[in-house]
Amino acid sequence: MGGNCVDRIERFTDDEQKLLVETLLSQNYVIELLSSELNDIESGIKAKDEHSYQQLKSLYDRLRIK
Amino acid sequence: MGGNCVDRIERFTDDEQKLLVETLLSQNYVIELLSSELNDIESGIKAKDEHSYQQLKSLYDRLRIK
Repeated sequence: MGGNCVDRIERFTDDEQKLLVETLLSQNYVIELLSSELNDIESGIKAKDEHSYQQLKSLYDRLRIK
Repeated sequence: MGGNCVDRIERFTDDEQKLLVETLLSQNYVIELLSSELNDIESGIKAKDEHSYQQLKSLYDRLRIK
């Protein structure tokens, strides 16, 4: 699935990526999204490299305390 | 709310933004997210400039036909 995502993200321009992240923040889905992703990784459903996993965890912690 | 989002997006590095968009795609939340945002704009709950609105609609159409 990782490879697939990389293929897909390249179809978005920087502007579009920024707009998607802004939308994600404004709809308050971001905590739910990160929590689902961390669950998938921690339960072994999804494989993710260690660096991305740590980055996701740190984003989750930063956003959760707001 | 727009100004608030811009404040918040600046707290993310490019790497983190990319990771968030990849996660968004891999969790299949993206259609749901865009649909909620378009609904909020079209019902007047949320104000958005015309360019961003068109870009969101075009992203929604591109992703919906997959």
